[in-house]
Amino acid sequence: MILGFDIGGTKSAVALADGSGVLIARSQVPTRQDLTPESMMDRLIERARRLLAREGIPQDALIGIGLSCGGPLDPEEGIVYTPSNLPHWNAVPVKAIVEDTFRRPVRVENDANATAWAEYLLGAGQGCRHLAYLTMGTGIGAGLVLDGRLYRGRHFLAGEIGHVVLQPDGPICGCGKRGCLEALASGPAVARRAQERLPVYPESLLHRLVVHPGQLTAREVVRAAKRKDPLALQILQETGMYWGQAISYLLQILDLERVLLGTLAIHAGDLILEPARRTVRRYTWHEICHDVLILPAGLGVRAQDYAAIALWLNENRRH
Amino acid sequence: MILGFDIGGTKSAVALADGSGVLIARSQVPTRQDLTPESMMDRLIERARRLLAREGIPQDALIGIGLSCGGPLDPEEGIVYTPSNLPHWNAVPVKAIVEDTFRRPVRVENDANATAWAEYLLGAGQGCRHLAYLTMGTGIGAGLVLDGRLYRGRHFLAGEIGHVVLQPDGPICGCGKRGCLEALASGPAVARRAQERLPVYPESLLHRLVVHPGQLTAREVVRAAKRKDPLALQILQETGMYWGQAISYLLQILDLERVLLGTLAIHAGDLILEPARRTVRRYTWHEICHDVLILPAGLGVRAQDYAAIALWLNENRRH
Repeated sequence: MILGFDIGGTKSAVALADGSGVLIARSQVPTRQDLTPESMMDRLIERARRLLAREGIPQDALIGIGLSCGGPLDPEEGIVYTPSNLPHWNAVPVKAIVEDTFRRPVRVENDANATAWAEYLLGAGQGCRHLAYLTMGTGIGAGLVLDGRLYRGRHFLAGEIGHVVLQPDGPICGCGKRGCLEALASGPAVARRAQERLPVYPESLLHRLVVHPGQLTAREVVRAAKRKDPLALQILQETGMYWGQAISYLLQILDLERVLLGTLAIHAGDLILEPARRTVRRYTWHEICHDVLILPAGLGVRAQDYAAIALWLNENRRH
Repeated sequence: MILGFDIGGTKSAVALADGSGVLIARSQVPTRQDLTPESMMDRLIERARRLLAREGIPQDALIGIGLSCGGPLDPEEGIVYTPSNLPHWNAVPVKAIVEDTFRRPVRVENDANATAWAEYLLGAGQGCRHLAYLTMGTGIGAGLVLDGRLYRGRHFLAGEIGHVVLQPDGPICGCGKRGCLEALASGPAVARRAQERLPVYPESLLHRLVVHPGQLTAREVVRAAKRKDPLALQILQETGMYWGQAISYLLQILDLERVLLGTLAIHAGDLILEPARRTVRRYTWHEICHDVLILPAGLGVRAQDYAAIALWLNENRRH
């Protein structure tokens, strides 16, 4: 049995799976930003205890416990450092907290890496050796599986593709630089670009989808694009082109087999992925990209549960 | 004992080293593009035989034989496919040729990868786990050592950083795309950019260094820059900025410890490396780049000999 903790910016969850990664039970709680990290961890641990009790699983039956959380974090020490979605979590020793409670070994990983590993073992990455999983939400980041191993880099910051600079004079990014991929093509950037152009498109469906100006999100842009709204389609096409440019860097440097995209890519599908693929073909060597698969991630809404669980799976446990 | 073959576009060499990588003897021949690959291999094999005889080393005393050559090549099958510096070498089974001759195991690797591995074990990469070695000559390519292992990618094309597109509307590249790093900042690109601007700089030293117009090379640009020629300095500064942009992509994606630069970087030193480092700092997260070392490669003029030899060295054999 494997116990998994997923800590997100808006919701968190505990999940229980068998030794091959089949989910048995889960329990979700809202992430309360008003609570201290310690109280939030207590709530999650309480949920985990109840889950184990309900399923009749003694602690000793756990192979291990996985914990997936936004980075930056130190996976070796198991300490979380101020993720952008958990701004008041500063140097929280999550590994020690969970280990002291359950007396079982705990593995901690940032959510992009953990999801990449889960996709590799259980999702759309099965059967390949080299892949990137890109989360395309509020933030943009990648987890890299290279030669069948998770690659983390020197400061555990590998995969920070959201902050490659595509336009040195582009819009300012949350990280302080200008023209980062994230500033151009994340969820909030999609919404911002649509909002800016709305006055020029008085016929756009987006006017009707948003009651209060300024509350536009990428979700409405995708919804309007699916109804063939020209402004929304244009925004998503440009977004795909930005993604394609960054993916071409990944491919030209890493010669990957698959690139799996989460979050916005799952909702928007080919409305973003087709322009992304076209841009990849334009910017990347044919020898490298002719057989690469650029796909939505495979684990869907349960990706975060699997991410925490998969930290205790290896290739022999693929199901 | 280890025997190494290095096959370059203008010169090739065989080298002999002991089991810890200390060079004992070498022999160099010009690469004759008028010879068939088979004849050229025969000449190198003949040199190798004489080297072994002169040193009194029987074939059986060889741990193995390394062969380093421009890519694309298949290191597993040991077949060389039309490198840009050996355009008439098409599907040459170099591994089989050398193995059949010496009856010892042969490892084949493209020169960027082999040099990265040599720098990691014997050169400026000693003591780190994650590095890129970039060859900055006629072509631009990288070898990647990630988590202490050579990373090759799906089609053995990882590290083709020379063909990341920095300027979608930039100058046409040999690969057919536009604005690749190689088209902007390789040796020939440096020469071309200097040549184009020469008429606007009638006082430039470059007019005197080049007897025949159109024969300008990066070598003269570096020589003039060292004598503080304003045009040459400007060209090298721009070159460093292009390099810095590409290195920032490497770092943002791979969170490396060191980036080692060969060829032009060794000749030009800080004239290129300082603008490159400044651009890296501007384009890369501080957390990633604050302690990265961006240095000239350490093995100097014998890098290619070590590259072929190092294919038979591992970390336990570091000297």
